[in-house]
Amino acid sequence: MCQPGRVSDNAFTPPVCVLGLGLIGGSLLRAAVRAGRRAWGHNRSAQSVNAARADGFDVDTDLVAVLQRASAESALIVIAVPLPAVAETLTAIARHAPNCSITDVVSVKAEVAAAVARQGLGDRYVGGHPMAGTSASGWSVGSADLFHDAVWVVGTDDDADPDIWTQVAQLALDCGSVVVPAESAEHDRAVARISHLPHLLAETLAVAGASGGPLALGLAAGSFRDGTRVAASAPSLVRAMCEGNRDALLAALDEALMLLQDARTQLSQQSSTATLVDAGHAARTTYENQETWEISGIVPGQAGWIDSMRDAGRRGGRLRRL
Amino acid sequence: MCQPGRVSDNAFTPPVCVLGLGLIGGSLLRAAVRAGRRAWGHNRSAQSVNAARADGFDVDTDLVAVLQRASAESALIVIAVPLPAVAETLTAIARHAPNCSITDVVSVKAEVAAAVARQGLGDRYVGGHPMAGTSASGWSVGSADLFHDAVWVVGTDDDADPDIWTQVAQLALDCGSVVVPAESAEHDRAVARISHLPHLLAETLAVAGASGGPLALGLAAGSFRDGTRVAASAPSLVRAMCEGNRDALLAALDEALMLLQDARTQLSQQSSTATLVDAGHAARTTYENQETWEISGIVPGQAGWIDSMRDAGRRGGRLRRL
Repeated sequence: MCQPGRVSDNAFTPPVCVLGLGLIGGSLLRAAVRAGRRAWGHNRSAQSVNAARADGFDVDTDLVAVLQRASAESALIVIAVPLPAVAETLTAIARHAPNCSITDVVSVKAEVAAAVARQGLGDRYVGGHPMAGTSASGWSVGSADLFHDAVWVVGTDDDADPDIWTQVAQLALDCGSVVVPAESAEHDRAVARISHLPHLLAETLAVAGASGGPLALGLAAGSFRDGTRVAASAPSLVRAMCEGNRDALLAALDEALMLLQDARTQLSQQSSTATLVDAGHAARTTYENQETWEISGIVPGQAGWIDSMRDAGRRGGRLRRL
Repeated sequence: MCQPGRVSDNAFTPPVCVLGLGLIGGSLLRAAVRAGRRAWGHNRSAQSVNAARADGFDVDTDLVAVLQRASAESALIVIAVPLPAVAETLTAIARHAPNCSITDVVSVKAEVAAAVARQGLGDRYVGGHPMAGTSASGWSVGSADLFHDAVWVVGTDDDADPDIWTQVAQLALDCGSVVVPAESAEHDRAVARISHLPHLLAETLAVAGASGGPLALGLAAGSFRDGTRVAASAPSLVRAMCEGNRDALLAALDEALMLLQDARTQLSQQSSTATLVDAGHAARTTYENQETWEISGIVPGQAGWIDSMRDAGRRGGRLRRL
């Protein structure tokens, strides 16, 4: 059985149980094993499990058995299924491994946290979100290198357990990432801007380009290719993350619509695109020149650590070691 | 003096005079020389000219002298200055080299064709547009490889002179590109969709991302990086091409606005993004799977060649040899 709160040599490096072996979960399992962590996984698809086994990994299609083992070995459970499958995964965890530490790698945080709370598992959970991925999906496209130098958000909500927080942060570091602490709602607002809005704009550009027929698509070069790249992502995954972050995405989308509408007015009335183009160039320059700095001196569990972590994350801080 | 219509061994491979030595013009000069063409160039900036000379190229800051030489050697003149500088360049050509063949590499075609017509040079002109570029600019970033396997639109308007058309197409082929024939207005509508709209969407995404502050920008990964890449382009160049293609860009922008507004409505009312995401994925798939085919058997100058070329371009045809 899990023994929450027990301090031992491996208090912050428990074994890892990965539920879902797609691009992210499959890469995480590979990265954890390469980092020397004991780790095993589950996928409901026999095909994926067979492929992962052929690659030498300890995986199974039997969710109950996988969770019972997690419970027996006090594993950190990583939920790596698509958002629509999170609720039933949590139901199984609540039944078979309720005392394990739990994290996830889903691209929205508030909705996952709410689902966790509905199962009464809130005190065992600290969310996560590695900012890595490609437009491909499935076990076969995973890589232990996927998280190398990536940013991994670790949820830093009011009730975060410092030991579980540390377990989750350590897993991110073991996978080669740097940790950015952020509260769930703040995370969701941020990723609406830099991950979900980009998808909707890419889909829009793809449609507008294809409407031009073979001539337009035949002339498409770098700007169209790059601008539509993520439209190649599986629609189910794009929909899951966009729809799972509905309110924050609506706000970001409204901002984009206003910028474009204003640009349309200026182009139409003054034959100018100056306002948007100058602002966009300045913003891209800010992005390229952004400076990050290393968070240090904040100890999970000490008074005020949650506020301090959040504040550091907001100001571009990243944790590189614990 | 130029001798239009004279047929000789080099009727379609005259020397090349490049006006403007930025990324495109500078790359074109390099590519033409590498292909064995005699070529020289002009830039008003002494700094660029000195850099090009240091790289071994035959260039000068004296526009009149450069054009007089073009006239004496029956060169094909390539206008490679930004759109706002095209008119005064044409004035100089009309004065000093009015009988030379003329093309350009500007990213819009109807407005350049109109400026050419205002100078009475319409019968000497066939426009061009190599679909290549980066967000960098200037002589130093140019490369003889820039046009390798790129698509190079050759303007195929009603009054196109078949010999000049062939000269321009041969230059594109010599630079390593494939030729897509297209009428100016059709070209402009196509590039509004696949080049100018992408720039406005990239600028918009950059602004929306930066509005999220260091947390949002710090979480930005591939989708934001790729989606904003061309926002790093010099604002003057982005403005020149967007504003030079105002009407076609307004139409493309309206289409994008409608797609996004409809997506907003569906997300807001039904918590779904299905319509846009499915359409975008299908469009990107069409783009990735587009098939091109080689144009052959259409001889410039033969009856109906202009209509045949345009039709072939519309259907995805590309010319790989003359």
